[in-house]
Amino acid sequence: MIRNIRVEQIEQTPTEQQQIELVERKGIGHPDSIADGIAEAISRALCRAYMDECGVYLHHNTDQGEIVAGESIPCFGGGKVVKPIYALLTGRATKTFDGINIPADAIAVEAARAYVKSIIPIMNMERDIIVDCRMGTGSTDLRDVFKTCGGTRVMRANDTSFGVGHAPFSEAESLVKGVSDYIDTAYRPRHPEIGTDVKVMGLRDGDEITLTLAVAMVDRYLADVGEYVEAVEKLKESLQGIAPQFTGRKTQVFVNTADDINNGSVFLTVNGTSAEMGDDGSVGRGNRCNGLITPNRPMSMEATSGKNPINHIGKIYNLLATQLGNTCVAEVDGIQEIYIRLLSQIGHPIDQPLVASAQIIPRKGVDLAEVQPAVEAIIDTGLDDIAGITEKVVRGDLKTF
Amino acid sequence: MIRNIRVEQIEQTPTEQQQIELVERKGIGHPDSIADGIAEAISRALCRAYMDECGVYLHHNTDQGEIVAGESIPCFGGGKVVKPIYALLTGRATKTFDGINIPADAIAVEAARAYVKSIIPIMNMERDIIVDCRMGTGSTDLRDVFKTCGGTRVMRANDTSFGVGHAPFSEAESLVKGVSDYIDTAYRPRHPEIGTDVKVMGLRDGDEITLTLAVAMVDRYLADVGEYVEAVEKLKESLQGIAPQFTGRKTQVFVNTADDINNGSVFLTVNGTSAEMGDDGSVGRGNRCNGLITPNRPMSMEATSGKNPINHIGKIYNLLATQLGNTCVAEVDGIQEIYIRLLSQIGHPIDQPLVASAQIIPRKGVDLAEVQPAVEAIIDTGLDDIAGITEKVVRGDLKTF
Amino acid sequence: MIRNIRVEQIEQTPTEQQQIELVERKGIGHPDSIADGIAEAISRALCRAYMDECGVYLHHNTDQGEIVAGESIPCFGGGKVVKPIYALLTGRATKTFDGINIPADAIAVEAARAYVKSIIPIMNMERDIIVDCRMGTGSTDLRDVFKTCGGTRVMRANDTSFGVGHAPFSEAESLVKGVSDYIDTAYRPRHPEIGTDVKVMGLRDGDEITLTLAVAMVDRYLADVGEYVEAVEKLKESLQGIAPQFTGRKTQVFVNTADDINNGSVFLTVNGTSAEMGDDGSVGRGNRCNGLITPNRPMSMEATSGKNPINHIGKIYNLLATQLGNTCVAEVDGIQEIYIRLLSQIGHPIDQPLVASAQIIPRKGVDLAEVQPAVEAIIDTGLDDIAGITEKVVRGDLKTF
Amino acid sequence: MIRNIRVEQIEQTPTEQQQIELVERKGIGHPDSIADGIAEAISRALCRAYMDECGVYLHHNTDQGEIVAGESIPCFGGGKVVKPIYALLTGRATKTFDGINIPADAIAVEAARAYVKSIIPIMNMERDIIVDCRMGTGSTDLRDVFKTCGGTRVMRANDTSFGVGHAPFSEAESLVKGVSDYIDTAYRPRHPEIGTDVKVMGLRDGDEITLTLAVAMVDRYLADVGEYVEAVEKLKESLQGIAPQFTGRKTQVFVNTADDINNGSVFLTVNGTSAEMGDDGSVGRGNRCNGLITPNRPMSMEATSGKNPINHIGKIYNLLATQLGNTCVAEVDGIQEIYIRLLSQIGHPIDQPLVASAQIIPRKGVDLAEVQPAVEAIIDTGLDDIAGITEKVVRGDLKTF
Repeated sequence: MIRNIRVEQIEQTPTEQQQIELVERKGIGHPDSIADGIAEAISRALCRAYMDECGVYLHHNTDQGEIVAGESIPCFGGGKVVKPIYALLTGRATKTFDGINIPADAIAVEAARAYVKSIIPIMNMERDIIVDCRMGTGSTDLRDVFKTCGGTRVMRANDTSFGVGHAPFSEAESLVKGVSDYIDTAYRPRHPEIGTDVKVMGLRDGDEITLTLAVAMVDRYLADVGEYVEAVEKLKESLQGIAPQFTGRKTQVFVNTADDINNGSVFLTVNGTSAEMGDDGSVGRGNRCNGLITPNRPMSMEATSGKNPINHIGKIYNLLATQLGNTCVAEVDGIQEIYIRLLSQIGHPIDQPLVASAQIIPRKGVDLAEVQPAVEAIIDTGLDDIAGITEKVVRGDLKTF
Repeated sequence: MIRNIRVEQIEQTPTEQQQIELVERKGIGHPDSIADGIAEAISRALCRAYMDECGVYLHHNTDQGEIVAGESIPCFGGGKVVKPIYALLTGRATKTFDGINIPADAIAVEAARAYVKSIIPIMNMERDIIVDCRMGTGSTDLRDVFKTCGGTRVMRANDTSFGVGHAPFSEAESLVKGVSDYIDTAYRPRHPEIGTDVKVMGLRDGDEITLTLAVAMVDRYLADVGEYVEAVEKLKESLQGIAPQFTGRKTQVFVNTADDINNGSVFLTVNGTSAEMGDDGSVGRGNRCNGLITPNRPMSMEATSGKNPINHIGKIYNLLATQLGNTCVAEVDGIQEIYIRLLSQIGHPIDQPLVASAQIIPRKGVDLAEVQPAVEAIIDTGLDDIAGITEKVVRGDLKTF
Repeated sequence: MIRNIRVEQIEQTPTEQQQIELVERKGIGHPDSIADGIAEAISRALCRAYMDECGVYLHHNTDQGEIVAGESIPCFGGGKVVKPIYALLTGRATKTFDGINIPADAIAVEAARAYVKSIIPIMNMERDIIVDCRMGTGSTDLRDVFKTCGGTRVMRANDTSFGVGHAPFSEAESLVKGVSDYIDTAYRPRHPEIGTDVKVMGLRDGDEITLTLAVAMVDRYLADVGEYVEAVEKLKESLQGIAPQFTGRKTQVFVNTADDINNGSVFLTVNGTSAEMGDDGSVGRGNRCNGLITPNRPMSMEATSGKNPINHIGKIYNLLATQLGNTCVAEVDGIQEIYIRLLSQIGHPIDQPLVASAQIIPRKGVDLAEVQPAVEAIIDTGLDDIAGITEKVVRGDLKTF
Repeated sequence: MIRNIRVEQIEQTPTEQQQIELVERKGIGHPDSIADGIAEAISRALCRAYMDECGVYLHHNTDQGEIVAGESIPCFGGGKVVKPIYALLTGRATKTFDGINIPADAIAVEAARAYVKSIIPIMNMERDIIVDCRMGTGSTDLRDVFKTCGGTRVMRANDTSFGVGHAPFSEAESLVKGVSDYIDTAYRPRHPEIGTDVKVMGLRDGDEITLTLAVAMVDRYLADVGEYVEAVEKLKESLQGIAPQFTGRKTQVFVNTADDINNGSVFLTVNGTSAEMGDDGSVGRGNRCNGLITPNRPMSMEATSGKNPINHIGKIYNLLATQLGNTCVAEVDGIQEIYIRLLSQIGHPIDQPLVASAQIIPRKGVDLAEVQPAVEAIIDTGLDDIAGITEKVVRGDLKTF
């Protein structure tokens, strides 16, 4: 069956040439990201269990859940959590299949706790967090749809929904993502006083970029407010130093600007996340699946994290659209910007979207016709290989937030 | 102090001329909308209580919370809820101020229950829903910021964040919103079999619009599958009939396309919402504050519902940006499309955004200079009157989802 | 099959002649009694539903559950609940039987709310209490035992356990129970300022009885501390006046002795129960099934409330033992005190206890042989009619606390 | 001030000479005992924290809490928990004192988890159990009482309540307690297939004792039903062998009599406790503070576990009464049975009970007058040293269940 693939050129001021551009990223320890990460960890754990015990991935959607903030008394040298964070796991999962019981609730609790421990190893898991579970079982209709297709290669869409993606990243986007990754992979390992709850907000105003970071600092690694100020300053300088790797524009970095040093009001935490002291988090409220929040770009409201990677459009189409955009830009010359939208129809095979749309801003002097066939081919191949998305997700090769 | 207002022209294919346009609205009984509505109802109730008892609006953010789906056995003629919906109220609120105790938890529970009862009057509140509460108190820093400004007219931003808005609605947007409103205000009152959980998905492909609705039907008002089919058909025809009020384009309406009538698999519910049978909901995952989800347009990820309407940028700036866009289009001739973005800086007065940006696509033949002064003035006035947003929200005059 | 009934005489100072006697009763609004009442209300509601929908009583045990105290700010003239009481319903129930779904969770929530409303009509059910539910399904073994006997008249014991009962009430017991009942049925209807959380502690020291009552007073019906003192005094006088109906002994009544009037520290509540302000409650921690706590008498630790009334020994044998004791004393002349103990063996028919023991203190001059045959007959008949206990419980004719 | 100590002789058939005697003990892994143990562990942890941080024990009562059973699929060779046990911690504790914050919630969660791990080391704490916390803060009145006495040596009673104790243990009591201890300390270490949820029910009928044990067997240590039967048999023989250490009477031991081996219905568990598969537990529903449930003896309904050991009569007087009884029997010749009752008056010093009553059955030929002075002296000394109870409890030297 021929796929409904539409490639069109759009007239649009390219993002880089717009006056104002906003980009945001919530780091892995931000309450919303914790919720996302837990949701996705549960989904992956369930997929593995389903495959191990039933030989097939079964229906589940754990793209819900709530992080209810605790209370803490941070203190230079080491404070304490007073009231544990409360993480409520919800969503639903298949609990019996073909006579086999899958301990979905126990799997969810274990996966959630293991995930939190992995991203915040300094957290006292016996004391600082409560992981509760009220996971249900899915509505019959959806499960039927799912089971019907159990034996075939291509799943049917669980919903009439869509996914969107764009490529390439603008300089501001690369910078925001780059700075966040740099902190996670390079800076924090050497500076444990930097918590995982790092919110990076980028504003490009013409050719000037302002990076404003809110960084939860870890109290046990800072002896006093002097060390705090020094650590914040050091981070700022370090980020200022790496910014040119991502942009040629003038960049200014601010960290914890809301601090009032004189009054001792600083962003100090026990475990490096504001979830411990007042900020709740929810699945799907933070980064889109490309790792960013980009109000200048088309976005989907769907939570990618925690949805089942088999037939849930809100997950698969967002991941695929993003991947297709990247592939087009990487392999096809002449694309300045590309926007991919994939729209499903409930009950139809997921490799046959109602429409797969690509909107392209060609590079100056390039005609749409020059890139169109290659883009169409990439989209077609991507849809052909859509089952690959599932596998990558289960293996953890595709990030969802 | 002069405000940093930027008005620029952007080159962009106007939405109406793009090939593909997607628009979605989740009706008031959709689980995400229930979560939004509860969150907002709590915020309003808290505001009233704060004003009554303390003479001032106090810090709170109830923009969190989770609807955990129940289980039901719908049945023509009237089925039953087997396991109640579980609504967890979270977020935080000021509970004591200046020696006065504000019963925030009790207020929240009461507001949530009253809200649900108001939108789903057929729900048995004693049996079909559990409203639980784990609301905390805010982090000290934010409250300090807030209290500091208690006496002044202009609040300080709680965060570095932004709001976005656009105007006018495209035909597809008007249609989706219009159809949803029509069902709520005109159709359901005469057709109680139509539940409140109505998801409207609009796809415009060139000049053809496809409206796909998922409508939770109410079992007690339908004697059998024949009546169900008839009711669905009738709704479809009615919507087909009103579509021309919103668009001159060819429009096709589909309702409950995932039904499998022969197998008796239909979208039947006890109370008219899928929250009763498998679909969880969260605050901030559904409609933006203009009532729609519009992946073709810039959107904010911030939940508008439940945030405090005094200094929370994620609420005030989204509402204001939307209002500013509408005012500009209503009062200034020559604007084809306008996009407003307001960016705050934590701790600064909210009427002094870091930048207030308007991107304009002028109507053919109109020069930016012709509209720029008026747009700037509207934005300036809007920021001057920003406290008015708070009042409108508290009175319930501004919808947030 | 002949029953193993043992009637023996015991040498024992009769209770009335012991120097010290202690008797306690927790009124219907005491947190433990609320928990008991909810548990029993759920069990009755489930029984009715099972009979209606399946034609048979099904396995359930709702003899668990927790009342987590709220917080309130009582205030003369009317205060308010700040944090709702949290009632967690647990236990387990059969949810599907023979293809029929029984909405056990919804039934439990409804029954619990209706019960609380019935005993504390002044409570604002939308605001002052949260009723949550985490009810499971029973362990397979017990359900098997139960189902096996579904068709027969006599159930099999769910456990190796026992029930105890005694008769007649001593004067102190009659007085404590009588005073509590008098408040509930005669005094409170005319004096709404008297809450339902009334704890009556009776101490008989030789021939003097001291009654110490802790009475939660209702703030909305008392204008000031003067009215409070007056109301407490009035109650005291009224009780002093009725005491002679129950005992010829000298009786002194104390009410709310822990009050410190001068410091304004009094037992004032919003809804007449300490559950609103700090006292948790649990099923089975309060009154035994004769309505009293009597450390001078043999007692069972089993919670009677909430257990299924079909085969749960902890319920049926306690109720039956109490009833047998009363019948013996009423119908057989010459018994000064009688203690009944019924011991079950798991899996055996409940009308065939391992042993049914009666310990008798005959009246002076009476020989055991004179009363033994009649007592044996009453026990035998009682066991014959054991199914009648079930019916009385379901109809609400037998109190369990 | 002279204490009101009453010593009287009672006429009573000594327990050993009564025809029927019932004794029960719930082992440490029984759901009610788990609840008790958690409650007590939290209280001890709080006491230590209060002393460390404030130099004084502060008000708390954690004598509440609920174990909501999970679901498991036990399986020879090793099954799994499907739905975790849910432990709700409630009660209340002082959270701030004199400007110091005590992280009571975090302490409670940590203590509860550590306790469960200590008694059921085979439980997977990351997967098999959820520990949730809804602990409040105490009612103001009680805290006032408590603080008032903060500086003095002797606390004031929190309530009008009482404690009871008896000594010595009868043979049946010694046997039930002895068998349970033997399994815990000697047998299980060598036989890990024996779970901690061991319920021992003893019935003495004249001179024959029947011990009926329900023992949760651990699936991972049993390869098949054959090994199960063998293990049960071995335990039975072992207990039969040690019975003569406790009684000269003929004793018969039964283990897991409800098993139906042929149908594969056996008492098999994953972690050795029925809390994993259907049996809820509550604080204060199991053993009294002497480790037994003894319907032939006076008992208090008060939960001893979890109550604060400073001024809570329900705890201190039960522990003291038991200790006084034991001391009297150990140090005073001529006592066949002794029953101690201590009655408090709210607000009065705890070393000045309203009445301290001892009921004595002297050994044959002994006159009350011979033992009375010694008993009075022991009681007087015990009340003098009542603060020692607190210390022993905090150190964990006094068992509460």
